[in-house]
Amino acid sequence: MEFYPHALLQMIECFAKLPGIGEKTAARLAFNMLKWLKEDAEKFSESIMRVVSEINECKKCFGYTEKEELCLICKNEKRDNKLLCIVEEFSDLAAIEKTGDYNGYYFVLGGRLSPIKGIGPESIHIDELVKRVKLDLSIEELILATNPTVEGEATAFYIAKAVRDLNKKISRIAFGIPMGGDLEYTDKVTLRRAIEGRKTF
Amino acid sequence: MEFYPHALLQMIECFAKLPGIGEKTAARLAFNMLKWLKEDAEKFSESIMRVVSEINECKKCFGYTEKEELCLICKNEKRDNKLLCIVEEFSDLAAIEKTGDYNGYYFVLGGRLSPIKGIGPESIHIDELVKRVKLDLSIEELILATNPTVEGEATAFYIAKAVRDLNKKISRIAFGIPMGGDLEYTDKVTLRRAIEGRKTF
Repeated sequence: MEFYPHALLQMIECFAKLPGIGEKTAARLAFNMLKWLKEDAEKFSESIMRVVSEINECKKCFGYTEKEELCLICKNEKRDNKLLCIVEEFSDLAAIEKTGDYNGYYFVLGGRLSPIKGIGPESIHIDELVKRVKLDLSIEELILATNPTVEGEATAFYIAKAVRDLNKKISRIAFGIPMGGDLEYTDKVTLRRAIEGRKTF
Repeated sequence: MEFYPHALLQMIECFAKLPGIGEKTAARLAFNMLKWLKEDAEKFSESIMRVVSEINECKKCFGYTEKEELCLICKNEKRDNKLLCIVEEFSDLAAIEKTGDYNGYYFVLGGRLSPIKGIGPESIHIDELVKRVKLDLSIEELILATNPTVEGEATAFYIAKAVRDLNKKISRIAFGIPMGGDLEYTDKVTLRRAIEGRKTF
């Protein structure tokens, strides 16, 4: 591809570093960018630099914050300080926040326990979580919202054990058949969870 | 999404402008970029600005060139100046060039005729093509490599008619069953083309 302009090659390489984008898609995206307006490209270019240089971890929840020490959620004093929802990643926080139904605070672990990948409790923010729960006396309930995978479950168990003596209510988000789902086509594990988790009607 | 850092929101918007990337994928890509090394992000950011500000149309073939008037292929005097391959877009040129089998020059139309979309001969570089074929006496053969779509075929016909009197050999790339393909599952139009285009064995 020595006939490609160098900047184009470099851009294809960069796009190909993104998850789920192979070399062909990267080339297609780069060809498309050749036709972008200069001001749109400037905006894109600038946002990339701002994202890596101005966005940092929030000192309190380990989510993302721009320039300031605390993120917009931790700074918001109108939220319910009795609830703390524990998630693996910022993208999980974003998913819950978009429902508009949760008004407590969050804590982003920054991953999940995975002995196979060498991720132990010290690799994610579990110590910080325990410390926060100890110091923040307003917290009454911890909602464990790690994913329903083997690793996510193990992480939830580990946290539950670590905070057991702190005398807080500990809950786990519900797992079962998704809305609009079909019992006939639901996998066994989910169905078992749905039956175990049944509620009085 | 007012809890997103502003730079992140802006980046998601930019990613979502790319073809085939919806809002969810855009968010996934942006979340990934948060974890990029600063030097990689700088490279990406820089390549975007360079692509829109330094890459221009080659004055001769209307492909892309970086900073200079002529692209790397047009500048290369070792190629076969008897052959001129006519394609719709630079990405088609790139596909042919990657085979490594073609050693002539190219001409990029910058689109294809499409009366429905209001793209007439004056919207793509057909006049420039005719002029080039008239002036460049070394050209002996024009290879029409527009796509095998209704619009691509119409464009090929139009060009063939426009250069008919210039006394050059005019050829069209072959269409038929792709290598590794299966006759049983080949569509009728392709099969018809394959039979019509049969060659002595």
